Amino acid sequence: MRDFLPEDVRKREYVIGVIKDVYERYGFEPLETPAAENIETLMGKYGEEGNQLIFKILKRGVHEGTGEADLALRYDLTVPLARVVAEYRDKLPTFFKRYQIQPVWRADRPARGRFREFYQCDVDVLGSHSMVVEAEICSAASEVLRRLGFNDFNIRLNHRKVLTGILGVAGVALELHDAALIALDKLDKVGRDGVEKELLARGVEANAANRLLKFFSELTELDHAAEIAAGEDPDTKQQALNKAVVGRIVEFVGDNEMGSRGVDELQAIVDYACAAGIANRLQIDPSLARGLSYYTGAIMEISVKDLAGSLGGGGRYDNLVGMFAGQDIPACGFSLGLERILVVMSERGMFPENIGTAGADVMVAVWSEESVGDSLMLAQELRVAGLRVDLYPEADKLGKQFKYASSRAVSFVAVVGDEERARGEVAIKDLRSGEQQSIKRASVAAELRRKLVLP
Amino acid sequence: MRDFLPEDVRKREYVIGVIKDVYERYGFEPLETPAAENIETLMGKYGEEGNQLIFKILKRGVHEGTGEADLALRYDLTVPLARVVAEYRDKLPTFFKRYQIQPVWRADRPARGRFREFYQCDVDVLGSHSMVVEAEICSAASEVLRRLGFNDFNIRLNHRKVLTGILGVAGVALELHDAALIALDKLDKVGRDGVEKELLARGVEANAANRLLKFFSELTELDHAAEIAAGEDPDTKQQALNKAVVGRIVEFVGDNEMGSRGVDELQAIVDYACAAGIANRLQIDPSLARGLSYYTGAIMEISVKDLAGSLGGGGRYDNLVGMFAGQDIPACGFSLGLERILVVMSERGMFPENIGTAGADVMVAVWSEESVGDSLMLAQELRVAGLRVDLYPEADKLGKQFKYASSRAVSFVAVVGDEERARGEVAIKDLRSGEQQSIKRASVAAELRRKLVLP
Repeated sequence: MRDFLPEDVRKREYVIGVIKDVYERYGFEPLETPAAENIETLMGKYGEEGNQLIFKILKRGVHEGTGEADLALRYDLTVPLARVVAEYRDKLPTFFKRYQIQPVWRADRPARGRFREFYQCDVDVLGSHSMVVEAEICSAASEVLRRLGFNDFNIRLNHRKVLTGILGVAGVALELHDAALIALDKLDKVGRDGVEKELLARGVEANAANRLLKFFSELTELDHAAEIAAGEDPDTKQQALNKAVVGRIVEFVGDNEMGSRGVDELQAIVDYACAAGIANRLQIDPSLARGLSYYTGAIMEISVKDLAGSLGGGGRYDNLVGMFAGQDIPACGFSLGLERILVVMSERGMFPENIGTAGADVMVAVWSEESVGDSLMLAQELRVAGLRVDLYPEADKLGKQFKYASSRAVSFVAVVGDEERARGEVAIKDLRSGEQQSIKRASVAAELRRKLVLP
Repeated sequence: MRDFLPEDVRKREYVIGVIKDVYERYGFEPLETPAAENIETLMGKYGEEGNQLIFKILKRGVHEGTGEADLALRYDLTVPLARVVAEYRDKLPTFFKRYQIQPVWRADRPARGRFREFYQCDVDVLGSHSMVVEAEICSAASEVLRRLGFNDFNIRLNHRKVLTGILGVAGVALELHDAALIALDKLDKVGRDGVEKELLARGVEANAANRLLKFFSELTELDHAAEIAAGEDPDTKQQALNKAVVGRIVEFVGDNEMGSRGVDELQAIVDYACAAGIANRLQIDPSLARGLSYYTGAIMEISVKDLAGSLGGGGRYDNLVGMFAGQDIPACGFSLGLERILVVMSERGMFPENIGTAGADVMVAVWSEESVGDSLMLAQELRVAGLRVDLYPEADKLGKQFKYASSRAVSFVAVVGDEERARGEVAIKDLRSGEQQSIKRASVAAELRRKLVLP
């Protein structure tokens, strides 16, 4: 777990500010839940590995000695949302669109961009089965990344029902679907042979494994064909490719009911995404599986070229809320990974200039022990005018005070010496240019605002 | 621990926004620390009762079965600050002025305005012994409350060295000072007789207890005298009273070294506070003790009339950082209690109008199943123009959609019917007035911004 010094906090708040602004513009409302949930709320929701990574809090009071835990730290923002929706159903709108930006905790082995305490930035829409929701969520996440300066991301899109259809048609037994998806998820990493080996090891029949892998191999050939058909324009290529991929899925799943429904929904999302202006970002990828078992419909993941792993991901989970509410409520959401976004932005130098060092606008220095009160007064006058003012707290030698101001990256130092006081003026030094001038006290704030180009 | 639904979050963010803005204006910089600290960092820093209230986290991995805890949830923001200052000393400025607004956790019995998870809003200055720091901190906290609309608060001010002087002169043995302060702290609640009884029970000699209580009783008479002297003006009265109280302390402590130094420092704070323009808020109160044992100098507490307890408090603690840094670093801080501020603001109706219900500016309705894509497009057009736009996700009957918009306190509904589409227009309904008009699509965003009086 990490400390965030001022420069870090400013960068994080800049990104969070953009995320909030975009999500509010899409009509999402803020929600916050407590750091700790009852331990039963979390256990069993994240699979066996997830259970292991939950931080558990010792029961307080007389039971402390037993080592029993009754609370646990928030592991993600989705399960708390499901609990909240069940708990406050009567107070929430039919379509509850919420964003939530809070830390979560996992007892994972720390690695690059992976921490035991990290922020998630989630949007979810509850209450609608419409694919408009998927399109809006992808559009909102895209807009966040675009506003932050990302130009090279794409949204990989798939559908759990399509996967079910493909596995079914290939002949993978229903009870082996989860295992098969875990194996397929590694296609990028271990290649066709590696996946085949794992499929067989997990009990998938050789014939079924073969049909499945043939389907995926043929998809990669489409990529090449689309390139030739579309020429140079990458957007045209992507759309041609998506069309070809959908065609191939339709062909493969045939009249498999699940598969057809999945394709129809995928197609609706693509159409709506087109209306929302993000068609060029979408890449239909039938090999995308995503780990969490609660997804029931569309699944998506956003990635950029120079980052292994994703900047965020999400999907539709129509049954999770039912585990708390006793009644299914359709839901679809997307989670942006703040820490990864920050890592990439830092590596690429994507932050606005000066954001990390933006401290005070001006430092008021202290001329002498006797004039401390006057310096305090000057600081207050400048603050009332909206300036961010640091006041040097001691009557040190002036040279030391100026040196300190430089080290703090403050732009201006204001000081009232005996001569200035006699003339009712303030000496202002611009530490960037070295220029110094004496200004009537009543005009100092306005003059500084002008020099700092404040509105 | 509590969930915060959108309305709650908006109120909290409004208050936090004001606090941040004021603290930045005073030259404070943001710091964030992790929710969990190593358990040894926290244990033993908050007294016996504090130890009991710390939430402990079970050690993960193979040790889980032992019930051993190695981490604990943040109990306040001061101890983590002390750890940070020791850990990053080389990266921090000589005078480290930080603000920190984060939740803390205490396994306390919940009560009105007391929760197991609650936010603290701290400012601290590290690195200076100057009383300018105390004056700036009191001034910043006052400015926060003033900006939030509080007019009736005052800052009670005392000094640990003054207390030591008074107890010493009264004849309370040094080793009984802490016990005597705990008893004195209850003067308001249990009265003179109650405190006397407790002092004796705690081993203070009858003579000493008597002298001590006589001193405090005589102070209350000053109040009456100051009132007569100052006439009607409450500010003049407060300043006259402070002067009289300081006079009485000087008289009582005589040449007691600790006491005299404390009085000098108190006087310096009052002078600086005068320069900072908050003299009328200060009330010197020699009976203020404050629970925490780490204070070494000035102590202060802000209260309003209709709230038992305080809105915030703080003081100087010159030795705490030394427990981590191996070298003392002077420090002084103030903590505003966000939850209590929110309770009082709610009870008094102090929030700006509409802050709790500020959702989307406009809802885009869906005319028919065929026009869903066009509604998505319209929503995007309005968002690009900076509006907060909710999109109804389904092609329900229009009446149902309008009813939903009303229930969400949205001001406008935009819809493109067949006729409007033919004319290249959008129908806009003002839900506040019931008025409806048809506007050229290219002008809708500007027109809505005008109606909503957005800048």
